[in-house]
Amino acid sequence: MTIHNLILHHRQGMEFDTEINGFPLVLNSENLTNGEPAGISPKKLLLAALSGCTAMDVKSLLDKMRVEFSDFSVSVEAPLGDEHPKTYLKYSIVYKIRINQKDRDKMEKAVNLSMERYCGVSAMLRKSAPVNYKIEYL
Amino acid sequence: MTIHNLILHHRQGMEFDTEINGFPLVLNSENLTNGEPAGISPKKLLLAALSGCTAMDVKSLLDKMRVEFSDFSVSVEAPLGDEHPKTYLKYSIVYKIRINQKDRDKMEKAVNLSMERYCGVSAMLRKSAPVNYKIEYL
Repeated sequence: MTIHNLILHHRQGMEFDTEINGFPLVLNSENLTNGEPAGISPKKLLLAALSGCTAMDVKSLLDKMRVEFSDFSVSVEAPLGDEHPKTYLKYSIVYKIRINQKDRDKMEKAVNLSMERYCGVSAMLRKSAPVNYKIEYL
Repeated sequence: MTIHNLILHHRQGMEFDTEINGFPLVLNSENLTNGEPAGISPKKLLLAALSGCTAMDVKSLLDKMRVEFSDFSVSVEAPLGDEHPKTYLKYSIVYKIRINQKDRDKMEKAVNLSMERYCGVSAMLRKSAPVNYKIEYL
């Protein structure tokens, strides 16, 4: 069993700093005086975790199946409820990829394997809201 | 209802880039040739989301109660299961803070309000594993 650790330090105002794998991350839910966000808002990190987890699964599985592709992206859309505690009501994932027609079944296999077997973030988040997904071929 | 969106682009190898609130985020589960991680691993973002969400709640509630404090940090420890899909088995949060003795009950109130009412990330993650927490006074 692996233990994951993280420590977040308060800096000033609503700014909190941490690092993951040695890479700094500045979290801040406030806006600057010009109205722009001052940092990353914590909740949206769930969307990065979800898309990142399944994107890496799919990339890794396509490599193992020796499938070539390009222009691969994964988007997530999630409506946030209005009541406290504000939680995501569902997650809609879209995989976009440019891939040979003959390899589309392999892409579908990779996505299904990620969603049904490998992606731990999806397995965790779908305990609180459904995770839907589709593939769009470019 | 607010809709949150995120798009992750494949760059090369296991590198995927996104941005949150205009701030770039580089995800990569591989190691560099020197053995150091090449980027942020997606799963650990859940720990940043969890600690960031509750840390901002507590900071905001302490401000509203006009409580002064310093050296505030929030750490999270989470064991990861060995079986696919690999999920966190529990989350142990420690709030560390330097605060006047007379304000400790307000700190406890702030933490409980975050955990029981406000922190959406905690509400989502505890559907898949328990979230424990304690306060340590400096």
